[in-house]
Amino acid sequence: MEKEISQAVIGRLPRYFRYLGELKDNGVQRISSQELSSLMKVTASQIRQDLNNFGGFGQQGYGYNVEYLYQEIGNILGLNVEHHLIIIGAGNLGQALANYLNFEKRGFLFKGIFDCNPALYGRKVRSLTVQPMEAVESFILENQVDIAVLTIPKESAVEVADMLVKNGVKAIWNFAHVDLNVPEGIQVENVHLSDSLMKLSYNLAKYNSQPT
Amino acid sequence: MEKEISQAVIGRLPRYFRYLGELKDNGVQRISSQELSSLMKVTASQIRQDLNNFGGFGQQGYGYNVEYLYQEIGNILGLNVEHHLIIIGAGNLGQALANYLNFEKRGFLFKGIFDCNPALYGRKVRSLTVQPMEAVESFILENQVDIAVLTIPKESAVEVADMLVKNGVKAIWNFAHVDLNVPEGIQVENVHLSDSLMKLSYNLAKYNSQPT
Repeated sequence: MEKEISQAVIGRLPRYFRYLGELKDNGVQRISSQELSSLMKVTASQIRQDLNNFGGFGQQGYGYNVEYLYQEIGNILGLNVEHHLIIIGAGNLGQALANYLNFEKRGFLFKGIFDCNPALYGRKVRSLTVQPMEAVESFILENQVDIAVLTIPKESAVEVADMLVKNGVKAIWNFAHVDLNVPEGIQVENVHLSDSLMKLSYNLAKYNSQPT
Repeated sequence: MEKEISQAVIGRLPRYFRYLGELKDNGVQRISSQELSSLMKVTASQIRQDLNNFGGFGQQGYGYNVEYLYQEIGNILGLNVEHHLIIIGAGNLGQALANYLNFEKRGFLFKGIFDCNPALYGRKVRSLTVQPMEAVESFILENQVDIAVLTIPKESAVEVADMLVKNGVKAIWNFAHVDLNVPEGIQVENVHLSDSLMKLSYNLAKYNSQPT
């Protein structure tokens, strides 16, 4: 694939994937862009434009083959490849993510969970055992870990991210409330929960200040 | 404020707020858009454009007053008003959010946590006690709850959101992996964790498939 696809389009793909998965589970075999449009509440033209980035998939007069489009979007999203993840930070959030079974169904396999708090060492989180941070480096190598989930306070996140990247981690799913500074080629996806809550707060304040 | 501000701009405000807060905590009193630009790794022109949506704040030859801009962005984000939140779903994620103290510092006060699983009733999460779902309706009214956090499976989320809105909740912070269908004027902010992980997976697959 040569063309550069915008992150906005990429950001919408998982939602297509989710709707197509539900249609598939409900036995729907094909769907027109109009039907998909009214279901997803985006314009049919947006759907066609988004999917045309990847070659289209639709056929005039037929619409989209649900199973095929679902598989193709899954492949585009890299879900046809297994990923090995570790979680750094075994607090509430780290444990919540480790317990979330849907990730495993999509090929995101949690291989280990680590913390720097000795009180947590040995604690079981699903099938994982909390290990000390000192064990991370060799663990990454032995388990071909490609994705690290950072659920630690912002104070240590930058330094820990550096260490992970030096040891071969290719992608970081960052829940620490700080911008990481990683080398070219290392992928970072941030989940800044308080940013999201503030955006909600803005929209709430704005709507309620409108003249009625 | 009459002008319609794009959600993309709104989405960037919390990041400005975070950087300005850190500058303030470090004793910095003023900063030029160039300095802020190199710190935040966005162009100075983007910063000026974003802030001009709200009236500017900068002075030629002086730059930005850090404390003032921090306060103003906080006000725009609605952080000068206290919010009363309830959490629906006392699983790992609900408990993780209830334990996150930084939200309270910003005026987001967790007032209650609810679940439909009797095994969890009475359990303490910080200063909150897990209550049955039947208690939600009267609780919302008595505690002037304006924001509900949905950390329940997608199967029940749509129905629960309807009930919350009927009882006066004005905003939903939705972690359930489904699109809610709420009336005009009700604010929803989605945190779809698996969408975020799939975006990471896409970028990982794309980068690694590039010719080197």
